[in-house]
Amino acid sequence: MDKGRVLLALTGFHPQRWHELLSTEREVVLEPDGPTDPSIAYAVVWKHRPNLLTSLPNLRVIFSIGAGVDHVFADPGLPDVPIVKIVADNLTQHMTEYVVWRVLDHHRQAMLYRSQQAKKIWHEAPQRPAGDISVGIMGMGTLGRAAASILKSLGFCVNGWSRREQAVEGVSTFAGEAGLIPFLNATDILVVLLPLTPATRGIVDYGLLRQLRRRNGLGGAVLINAGRGRLQKDADIVRALEDGTLKEASLDVFEVEPLPKTSPLWAHPKVFVTPHAAATSDPNHLVPIILRQMDAFERGEPLRDLVDREAGY
Amino acid sequence: MDKGRVLLALTGFHPQRWHELLSTEREVVLEPDGPTDPSIAYAVVWKHRPNLLTSLPNLRVIFSIGAGVDHVFADPGLPDVPIVKIVADNLTQHMTEYVVWRVLDHHRQAMLYRSQQAKKIWHEAPQRPAGDISVGIMGMGTLGRAAASILKSLGFCVNGWSRREQAVEGVSTFAGEAGLIPFLNATDILVVLLPLTPATRGIVDYGLLRQLRRRNGLGGAVLINAGRGRLQKDADIVRALEDGTLKEASLDVFEVEPLPKTSPLWAHPKVFVTPHAAATSDPNHLVPIILRQMDAFERGEPLRDLVDREAGY
Repeated sequence: MDKGRVLLALTGFHPQRWHELLSTEREVVLEPDGPTDPSIAYAVVWKHRPNLLTSLPNLRVIFSIGAGVDHVFADPGLPDVPIVKIVADNLTQHMTEYVVWRVLDHHRQAMLYRSQQAKKIWHEAPQRPAGDISVGIMGMGTLGRAAASILKSLGFCVNGWSRREQAVEGVSTFAGEAGLIPFLNATDILVVLLPLTPATRGIVDYGLLRQLRRRNGLGGAVLINAGRGRLQKDADIVRALEDGTLKEASLDVFEVEPLPKTSPLWAHPKVFVTPHAAATSDPNHLVPIILRQMDAFERGEPLRDLVDREAGY
Repeated sequence: MDKGRVLLALTGFHPQRWHELLSTEREVVLEPDGPTDPSIAYAVVWKHRPNLLTSLPNLRVIFSIGAGVDHVFADPGLPDVPIVKIVADNLTQHMTEYVVWRVLDHHRQAMLYRSQQAKKIWHEAPQRPAGDISVGIMGMGTLGRAAASILKSLGFCVNGWSRREQAVEGVSTFAGEAGLIPFLNATDILVVLLPLTPATRGIVDYGLLRQLRRRNGLGGAVLINAGRGRLQKDADIVRALEDGTLKEASLDVFEVEPLPKTSPLWAHPKVFVTPHAAATSDPNHLVPIILRQMDAFERGEPLRDLVDREAGY
């Protein structure tokens, strides 16, 4: 197979560095020569324009830069070619950092100590050992498993929930609709790393948060969402914080991004906001992976990290 | 050997729970019957009254509850009996949590994101991968090694410095006075876990902080002290923060504790203060370890975790 030409179609990323790195081995364009350009063999995309790819006759593979592929399926004219999601070790490492950081920050009572510091109060609060705390991870893919592993080695109890049954060493796993309530009932700190699909949209609502474990002395459950904003209902999180269902939350993603200035989440004293920065796609790490996959594909080898179109992730 | 009586001499801890737990197996008193009470075989201490133990004729062992034993050597009338420092897994786990939490908090730019949140600014800051950052741990005992292990698995480069040469897998180790400057020159985030001895008192001064690596784009080095307050010079830390030698600091310990209300550290925007709460001694975990050591000693077995009086830790 010949060395195919690459269409680079990114929204919300500066394409320059991606273009430079891909161009070291491939011919790269930012626009096809018309809707039926026969020269395009691969598309490297992030939130590409709808119908951009529909009629490209020789398109072989779509590469999504990032673990979430909901942006690809947002295109009603998506052609029927394989979709690969590129998950760099680097991205996994950044996400693991974020999850471990946020879990420890809530567990070690950062908000309490920060408010005591502001008032110059020297008071040691009772501290539970990690082994008394269950962290529940929704979404046990590459990212969820990597975070679970470090949390385990810090001594936390770790539960995992996923759509399909799966075993992960040292993690109590729950699956499907039947497993959701038992999973939530056993969880003190909920970490959301789910893909956004029609089945998961809005799943983190008030009803779900009410099912989290609330124990004496812990003062409510904790929510950490580093998945996708549209998994959650922002207003339900505010309500759960107000009535004590939730003690605190760390949110990296929101229903609408950038988070509107009018959102009560910005100024909420129990919420830590980051601007969808938990783990971003770094071209220095991702481009070599993409180029290696193209080479392997042209040698007739199977694609890795293929998206299941049925499941939507 | 008969089952010896225990003197429990704690300052700054409520003795009740310790007393209850030790009493399940031993006779326990809070004061000896005079300075030469022959019935006392063991002392379980934290900042005991000077000369309290000097003339007890049958004292066999002193147990210090906590990894730091400088409080024991503060007694000018300390008798010449073995000193055991009790380091529970639990204490190690709490300290590891604290160190990993503080390293991630600085690495992931918590202070920047918190100040952006206060102004409702949605802006993603460039984020270095952990592999670009060197965490240098001063003090590679039980606590230092445990923290190093988790930091390694998060992808950080880890350096260790200790008084005596030692090898730790995956850690670049430096030793003694000759190794100190090279260690500091290679360190972006300094974690202090040293014991307090005449040789380490005041070691974390302005001159030491000036030797830390300051790289473009990182905006100064970071200091985390979870060892002892008198290892550091509070005023030198303020100076280093003011002139950019240090970017930020997390301090759990201070020259004077509780930290006086007049200290500029309380209100410094680049300092995170906790009230000597990184890792506290939990009687539920420590008392069984102490009781097992007493039993073993009476069976003629050697004591574990003995303090080296020469080295002072």
